[in-house]
Amino acid sequence: MICINGDRLLSALRELATIGKFQTGVDRIAFSDSDVAARRWLVRKLTAAGLKATLDRVGNVLGRAPKAATAVLIGSHTDTVPRGGWLDGALGAIYGLEIARSAIEGGGDHAVDVISFQDEEGTFLPFLGSRSFCGELADSEIAATRARDGCALTDALAALAQEAPPVRLDRARHRCYLEAHIEQGPRLEGAGRRIGVVTSIVGIRRFRLRAHGRADHAGTTPMSMRQDAGTALMWFMKWVAEAFPRLAGPDTVWNIGAIAFRPGAANVVPAEAELTLEFRDARTELLDLLENRVLARVAESAGTPVRLEAERTMQIAPTAMSGELADTLAAAAATLGEEPMRMPSGAGHDAMVVGRVIPAAMLFVPSIGGRSHDISENTSDADIVLGCEVLADAVARLRKG
Amino acid sequence: MICINGDRLLSALRELATIGKFQTGVDRIAFSDSDVAARRWLVRKLTAAGLKATLDRVGNVLGRAPKAATAVLIGSHTDTVPRGGWLDGALGAIYGLEIARSAIEGGGDHAVDVISFQDEEGTFLPFLGSRSFCGELADSEIAATRARDGCALTDALAALAQEAPPVRLDRARHRCYLEAHIEQGPRLEGAGRRIGVVTSIVGIRRFRLRAHGRADHAGTTPMSMRQDAGTALMWFMKWVAEAFPRLAGPDTVWNIGAIAFRPGAANVVPAEAELTLEFRDARTELLDLLENRVLARVAESAGTPVRLEAERTMQIAPTAMSGELADTLAAAAATLGEEPMRMPSGAGHDAMVVGRVIPAAMLFVPSIGGRSHDISENTSDADIVLGCEVLADAVARLRKG
Repeated sequence: MICINGDRLLSALRELATIGKFQTGVDRIAFSDSDVAARRWLVRKLTAAGLKATLDRVGNVLGRAPKAATAVLIGSHTDTVPRGGWLDGALGAIYGLEIARSAIEGGGDHAVDVISFQDEEGTFLPFLGSRSFCGELADSEIAATRARDGCALTDALAALAQEAPPVRLDRARHRCYLEAHIEQGPRLEGAGRRIGVVTSIVGIRRFRLRAHGRADHAGTTPMSMRQDAGTALMWFMKWVAEAFPRLAGPDTVWNIGAIAFRPGAANVVPAEAELTLEFRDARTELLDLLENRVLARVAESAGTPVRLEAERTMQIAPTAMSGELADTLAAAAATLGEEPMRMPSGAGHDAMVVGRVIPAAMLFVPSIGGRSHDISENTSDADIVLGCEVLADAVARLRKG
Repeated sequence: MICINGDRLLSALRELATIGKFQTGVDRIAFSDSDVAARRWLVRKLTAAGLKATLDRVGNVLGRAPKAATAVLIGSHTDTVPRGGWLDGALGAIYGLEIARSAIEGGGDHAVDVISFQDEEGTFLPFLGSRSFCGELADSEIAATRARDGCALTDALAALAQEAPPVRLDRARHRCYLEAHIEQGPRLEGAGRRIGVVTSIVGIRRFRLRAHGRADHAGTTPMSMRQDAGTALMWFMKWVAEAFPRLAGPDTVWNIGAIAFRPGAANVVPAEAELTLEFRDARTELLDLLENRVLARVAESAGTPVRLEAERTMQIAPTAMSGELADTLAAAAATLGEEPMRMPSGAGHDAMVVGRVIPAAMLFVPSIGGRSHDISENTSDADIVLGCEVLADAVARLRKG
């Protein structure tokens, strides 16, 4: 058994939230001064807790349990989106700190390594830290990467050039990876549950849809003589709204998040129209089905006055979590009197990258109002502490097993 | 009878098109160097033709027939949209030049004044010239006006400060106003007609529609728990596409020319969505009906998760052309063997402004492929010459009447 200290956990989370504080949230985008300050802070905290802590050249922080040959790896990330919340990523990293510290204090044989991955949020490259940790990040990819504002990743990395060589996943040492995270959605709250156990991380397909029409004067061109790219895209959107609920599974989600008409003047019939469609599901065959239907709908436009065109701009395969680890998390929750909700994660997490190499599992705590990536993001203190207790109990079970 | 010279007409049009030439079109936005150069060129041409010509402080060019107490006013505008066509506006002004010159050469008692209005295209203020000419333009409005690029109208006017005081419509002198223009649409060409006689200039209503939803993570928020502003706007667009054809008249046109989702990210459910809807018709009661139906559809959203909101951003009343003048134009066309098409003008013209003060009428010539406001804009030489012959014949009829 590992007895965590709830007050100390909350106090560490609150202390971390002062670094890069922005109103009720934080602004710690990867490689910013506040992000690096938070990572140095975590190194000090891990060291004070008795771990051997390293900040490496890409910004990953790894705390190693002393005197242990194998360990459970616990963590997440301490970087945020711009003007983000105080818990996203921070929660999982500080759970690691608290559980590792409590394990050492308890004097048992529970060895916990703690990690905070760099740039999970993709300021430069999504999952940069976990990909580096898993040996997936090529120098050529680093050299070619720029942030949206044009800043080169190599320039951002220069500030960390004096730090340690990249820390790596050690298959002989790291038995498994556990990541706790806020849900970032409303399902736990909606169902009145306090613990979510992630079954898989969904796959994502993203498309750019373009309609090619003709610009015409909207006052002088009769309706019957137009090739209106905007209206063609509207009919495509309507098809999505009606067909996807029939084709999709219960957990499938989809979104049309961006749209533009060109030239975009009130008195000009749109010559071109473009939208972004994405959909997510844990099952590859369902993603394939949806993609095929989208492409078939696009192909139907071939002979019509307004031609549609689809380009896939993102494809991320679903990642199943370890069933055994998920069962362990669920058993730990049950011991603490909580029936967990088994659910897919609709958002990507570092567990997706690490889970391809060693067994991984994720635990969710409720997001109040489903809010995240925003300064309003929050979770009740009681749920924060409960989540850490469940995770600590699971670690204790793993060490026994 | 006034015998015009077709070759001289075409040659004057081609000479004007060299001023501000851009590929096969022209770029003479109001108050630009090329626009002012074209206006000075027109003053010289009118003077050489025997008229008393003035460039005024707002950029209007007026050529007065000598020794006449009353005159028919003929003209249009010589400014263009950016990278516009060679005929839009220029055609009507050069028809005026050719008919006035021919009338003087003919030695009859046909007095023709010629005008080129400033900034019809609204680089700073649509119909600036005709509104000044009709005494409708207040100094306070001039002081408050800026172009889209931020340039103040007062700064643009400074270049013309040494020119003549504003020329004004003279009710005692100007019996009526005739404006020839390219159709800017495909109807004449589609019907195989060469002359259009405008019955009225349509009214315009323009609205900004906004949907107010909620931003949610598009991966973690189940479909049933979203307030998707983008999808709500799609259903509004679908309603327009289905309801307007039932409600509208045969000549009604409408357009959704611009749209935006905010925040506009692929993985965020749109919190806000906005589009621009405009519709045009020659009948005020039909415009009222369409407006009422739009507002009723918007009001229906009041109790739903995504509230719609409509704001009228433009309202221009329809302007009927003089029936008597239109009949004169039609009779002139018939004499020259052409059955004219009676049609509304779907675009605004200076005749809309002048027509509120004195009787006005408009004549259209075909636009090849319906193209305008583009360098591909064109009309066959034969149609250009025919249009001027019809207009000259109409002037001769008016002087007789």
